[in-house]
Amino acid sequence: MTDGLPMPVPAEGLPARVRIHEVGARDGLQNEKTVVPTEVKAEFIHRLAGAGLTTIEATSFVHPKWVPQLADAESLFPQLADLADGVDLPVLVPNDRGLARAMELGARRIAVFGSATETFAKANLNRTVDESLAMFEPVVARARAAGVHVRGYLSMCFGDPWEGAVPVAQVVAVARRLRDLGCDELSLGDTIGVATPGHVRALLTGLGEAGVPTDSLGVHFHDTYGQALSNTLAALQHGVTTVDASAGGLGGCPYAKSATGNLATEDLVWMLEGLGIETGVDLGRLTATSVWMAGQLGRPSPSRTVRALSHQEQ
Amino acid sequence: MTDGLPMPVPAEGLPARVRIHEVGARDGLQNEKTVVPTEVKAEFIHRLAGAGLTTIEATSFVHPKWVPQLADAESLFPQLADLADGVDLPVLVPNDRGLARAMELGARRIAVFGSATETFAKANLNRTVDESLAMFEPVVARARAAGVHVRGYLSMCFGDPWEGAVPVAQVVAVARRLRDLGCDELSLGDTIGVATPGHVRALLTGLGEAGVPTDSLGVHFHDTYGQALSNTLAALQHGVTTVDASAGGLGGCPYAKSATGNLATEDLVWMLEGLGIETGVDLGRLTATSVWMAGQLGRPSPSRTVRALSHQEQ
Repeated sequence: MTDGLPMPVPAEGLPARVRIHEVGARDGLQNEKTVVPTEVKAEFIHRLAGAGLTTIEATSFVHPKWVPQLADAESLFPQLADLADGVDLPVLVPNDRGLARAMELGARRIAVFGSATETFAKANLNRTVDESLAMFEPVVARARAAGVHVRGYLSMCFGDPWEGAVPVAQVVAVARRLRDLGCDELSLGDTIGVATPGHVRALLTGLGEAGVPTDSLGVHFHDTYGQALSNTLAALQHGVTTVDASAGGLGGCPYAKSATGNLATEDLVWMLEGLGIETGVDLGRLTATSVWMAGQLGRPSPSRTVRALSHQEQ
Repeated sequence: MTDGLPMPVPAEGLPARVRIHEVGARDGLQNEKTVVPTEVKAEFIHRLAGAGLTTIEATSFVHPKWVPQLADAESLFPQLADLADGVDLPVLVPNDRGLARAMELGARRIAVFGSATETFAKANLNRTVDESLAMFEPVVARARAAGVHVRGYLSMCFGDPWEGAVPVAQVVAVARRLRDLGCDELSLGDTIGVATPGHVRALLTGLGEAGVPTDSLGVHFHDTYGQALSNTLAALQHGVTTVDASAGGLGGCPYAKSATGNLATEDLVWMLEGLGIETGVDLGRLTATSVWMAGQLGRPSPSRTVRALSHQEQ
């Protein structure tokens, strides 16, 4: 609590260190109404790095027609070159053409975005699950041949707005196929935020039984029903050490009736600091960054920790 | 997920049933700016009971000067008489005079409000911890002699805004004294919301070692830093089966920079339903009640589950 931090009291059975995969600049800004200027994005990512984050998903090389918020990937990415030594800067690529654009600019890490359900694959990618995996196959192969690290996002791992609860076996099957394509890492997404801790454990257990190593998994929880942090705790207790989060909870509008946002990085760091788990993140600097970004977006942060700490600091 | 509920997937080492101690009508409304008319409070409590809650803290017999929001305890409590068969309706009493007023009206359960720290005892009760315990002693004795159940709130169990982190041994010592006075049940309050799961476990372990039975304990977490639900999960994993929560997150203003609100009952029920833990609560009816109450207060609920479900229902 001193200096705006909780008292560290470790708990048994938890990892000593967690790697935060910061998604605010990509997943967060992609889901904000406001389109942020390129120089603000570049400053945002530099500030995130200055706060100690070492994995910062930077942008998406998707067609501007689909994601106008990130249409400036080509001009943004080179502005991050000075960070490349100490910080991983993965970028999302939807297909072979996106990969080519990213690699021309020197990207060393990419991510592809798959779905555990047919209806979301259709809605998001306009393809079946099989067709989307077929689309990813040459992308992953070409990336790996060039020594580029590949993350596979797997969305709708717990529930789907059309299909309801998603069976563990179905998620495990798609996860196995992404692994077989060559993905180095998978991020398990609770895209609509319905998961609870027992479901998280059941999926992680199922993946382990299917031979997917726990240290190749990240978890990506949404706070739609306020469950993101308790699900994260359950994942940490299972041995997961990579957690996706979004600075300031970017991507979830605090005034929308349905706040569908990502877990806020600050809320996550508060818990991890309290558990004595190392993250390398300076919570005060991170909070200041999110307050600054909220100002750029013209609205307060939905992160409870940001609101509490920024109030205290005034 | 069907019908606005998560898929139940039990997890090992958790209780089969949790008793929710609903504090919205007392702790929640006490901390709202708007003073709610008596008949609205009565309807609120009846709706909470209709949603399946069986422990509903009803009001406080404190001097109206200190808590004007609850100045109508004498006229409200008799309006709840029809609930008394199936629902426990504890009331807060600050002292002997409050106890006499409550017992005259037939209250069968009371609560006293203590502090683990000297500075909060001074700020809230204008007494030292010793003096406050001395004030509670005859209250608890008289209540128990009349067969009235006594809950002891213990606030500032993890951190204190003036003193910082609160040592476990200090909390255990005050808890022991409340037990020795005769409190049937203790509610461990994280009044400023700074706790994290390891700290929760450490306190529960310390209390167990000091001979305080886990089944006499409730937990009362605040969501100031977004930690309430993960702390609840840690407490459930330790064997706690009584959890305090506030319908719709009452008591925390969604527009305040520092949302100091209680854990929202709906967010709690979502997690418990997902874990297959029985609560007896109908989440749809509870959410409808909180939406109605938010209308009475003229602002949206800060509960993420309420916002998500009420959006879906429209």
